[in-house]
Amino acid sequence: MQKRIVILPGDGIGPEVTAAAERVLTEIGTAYGHEFEVKHAYLGGAAIDEYGTPLPQETIDACQQSDAVLLGAVGGPKWDSLPGDIRPEKGLLGLRKSLGLFANLRPVTIFDSLADASPLKDEVVQGVDLLIVRELTGGLYFGEPRERREVNGEETAVDTLIYSRSEIERIVRRGFELARERRGILTSVDKANVLESSRLWREVVEEVAGDYPEVTYSHMLVDNAAMQLIRNPKQFDVIVTENMFGDILSDEASMITGSLGMLPSASLSESGPGLFEPIHGSAPDIAGKGIANPLATLSSVVLMLAYTLEMPEEAKALQKAIDDVLKNGYRTADLTDQANVLSTDEMTEKVVEAL
Amino acid sequence: MQKRIVILPGDGIGPEVTAAAERVLTEIGTAYGHEFEVKHAYLGGAAIDEYGTPLPQETIDACQQSDAVLLGAVGGPKWDSLPGDIRPEKGLLGLRKSLGLFANLRPVTIFDSLADASPLKDEVVQGVDLLIVRELTGGLYFGEPRERREVNGEETAVDTLIYSRSEIERIVRRGFELARERRGILTSVDKANVLESSRLWREVVEEVAGDYPEVTYSHMLVDNAAMQLIRNPKQFDVIVTENMFGDILSDEASMITGSLGMLPSASLSESGPGLFEPIHGSAPDIAGKGIANPLATLSSVVLMLAYTLEMPEEAKALQKAIDDVLKNGYRTADLTDQANVLSTDEMTEKVVEAL
Ligand SMILES: CC(C)[C@H](C(=O)O)[C@@H](O)C(=O)O
Ligand SMILES: CC(C)[C@H](C(=O)O)[C@@H](O)C(=O)O
Repeated sequence: MQKRIVILPGDGIGPEVTAAAERVLTEIGTAYGHEFEVKHAYLGGAAIDEYGTPLPQETIDACQQSDAVLLGAVGGPKWDSLPGDIRPEKGLLGLRKSLGLFANLRPVTIFDSLADASPLKDEVVQGVDLLIVRELTGGLYFGEPRERREVNGEETAVDTLIYSRSEIERIVRRGFELARERRGILTSVDKANVLESSRLWREVVEEVAGDYPEVTYSHMLVDNAAMQLIRNPKQFDVIVTENMFGDILSDEASMITGSLGMLPSASLSESGPGLFEPIHGSAPDIAGKGIANPLATLSSVVLMLAYTLEMPEEAKALQKAIDDVLKNGYRTADLTDQANVLSTDEMTEKVVEAL
Repeated sequence: MQKRIVILPGDGIGPEVTAAAERVLTEIGTAYGHEFEVKHAYLGGAAIDEYGTPLPQETIDACQQSDAVLLGAVGGPKWDSLPGDIRPEKGLLGLRKSLGLFANLRPVTIFDSLADASPLKDEVVQGVDLLIVRELTGGLYFGEPRERREVNGEETAVDTLIYSRSEIERIVRRGFELARERRGILTSVDKANVLESSRLWREVVEEVAGDYPEVTYSHMLVDNAAMQLIRNPKQFDVIVTENMFGDILSDEASMITGSLGMLPSASLSESGPGLFEPIHGSAPDIAGKGIANPLATLSSVVLMLAYTLEMPEEAKALQKAIDDVLKNGYRTADLTDQANVLSTDEMTEKVVEAL
């Protein structure tokens, strides 16, 4: 097959981990006879430096014309004091919106060989395998008005949490569909005892549920979900929730594994290209040193192969290569205290060999 | 001293645990020569059953005329299908607003004798001693508009996250003051990379900080805070944050101990009576069986004695009694798998004896 892939290296360790991904993509292309046409574009701080804006039109165009987008990470202290509008994160938020990436998928699985890294007890984490499905283009992140205003002569700040039925329905359906392909259990998280938007959310879940009789679903309040994720994460299969709750819960859930450097994410639209990225940040403190863990980005490539490029076999092979490398005891610096650690490139080569 | 205390037993196990508190208050009154004039009033489901509303005017009046309010818990399946306006939780939200309870304090400490109950590893939880200071009368919980509306012919739901400078300032000051009395470290949690209200929040923190040079403060994004609370809770002393983030993070933090039945909370106003309650819910499944753990409610009495009734010595004595009882191995059913467990009343008597 022929596929167009846009790589957005971004900031910090972004260029290092996306280079690793490109190396692996080339290898997969050769092995399976695909032609990956890779294009690089700017996003975040790198784009601010180059274009004066975190999301240049050229980047949007390139992404829209692609089959899939791979992102490293955006942000860093260098751009922290810029005004809100030209901050690196704005580029990411804008890209999500331009590509219609309403569904953010964050699988959380425990690599048995890394279970020690978790701050949670062994018996709590062994066997955890959950997927957070976060709404990504609505709610507090994009609602208007968002502004300062004078109220009774006093400065006041306002954000708006707004959801339409159709926005809720498409993400909830995605949640049910994913649950159906997994263990068939869906937990919808809201704050229906306080928020009007959550009450609409719950109504929509109730309506949509009728179309998925194979899925067992339930509602959970967000405060309770924040507890249950630590108390007993094994109870979850798929969690579906709105944007801000998803932001908080998915980061909390990622900590269950204790190895942030391992976790991938996929952001999907209705039918256009998906965006794939590791959930770790740009890690400016270790940028440029060649020691970043590339595995979260390589796992993001697994998701890209599986969800957007329709290459399930290739996805499985890469996943297996990553698992094997870990089983064989290879580690980057973030995963071990031992002296004998691999660099980003060495780890990437191990995965290529295992492929 | 003479003090007027309103007890709101509420629903589920509420009446059982507040009865325990009343027993202990009587004992303290006798021992220290105070006169506690205790009045009972209705809130939540109990009030719906009695008055048709979760927050009768009589309850508001009684609370406003008191020196302190002790609440058991509200809510239960019996009232779950009622319309939003007459749900038990509405009573609690309304009471917070009527009493101006803008500062919710949730201490999270590990009882060494119960550290096993935590889902987190020993080395992660040993020595945790943090306090979450949550804004309680603003933000998404009370902002207007909160409504359904048609947008482009489609049903849409809206909530509003709104904060004024003065609302932020009073809670942030409270956070700094509490940090100053503790280890002098304040973490302000927001989502300033996305929310306008969080950017105002951050500005106010920066301004107020100048008045508390003894306190070391920093900002943390809410998604990161949700991770750090599990990764390394010992890094925190005082956390101050807005209403919804505080709801989620304080429940998450309470799980660090693994013993929800142990944790108290205080909700304070500028100068009026405070409200004190255990953080556990109404636990309808064990209600009426006499097996509920009264210690979170008794710890709430400790906070009441310390924060509102100006009885620091009595507070210390009660805290010590609770600690001693635990050290001596006494347990209610929620704290142990062993057969030899105490009922609510028996546990209460142990505390009274230890006093
Ligand atoms: C960078 C930030 C705007 C972003 C978000 O809040 O969505 C990040 O935390 C994430 O989860 O991808
Ligand atoms: C019952 C509910 C409205 C309440 C809240 O969200 O504030 C509860 O979760 C709490 O934290 O006291």
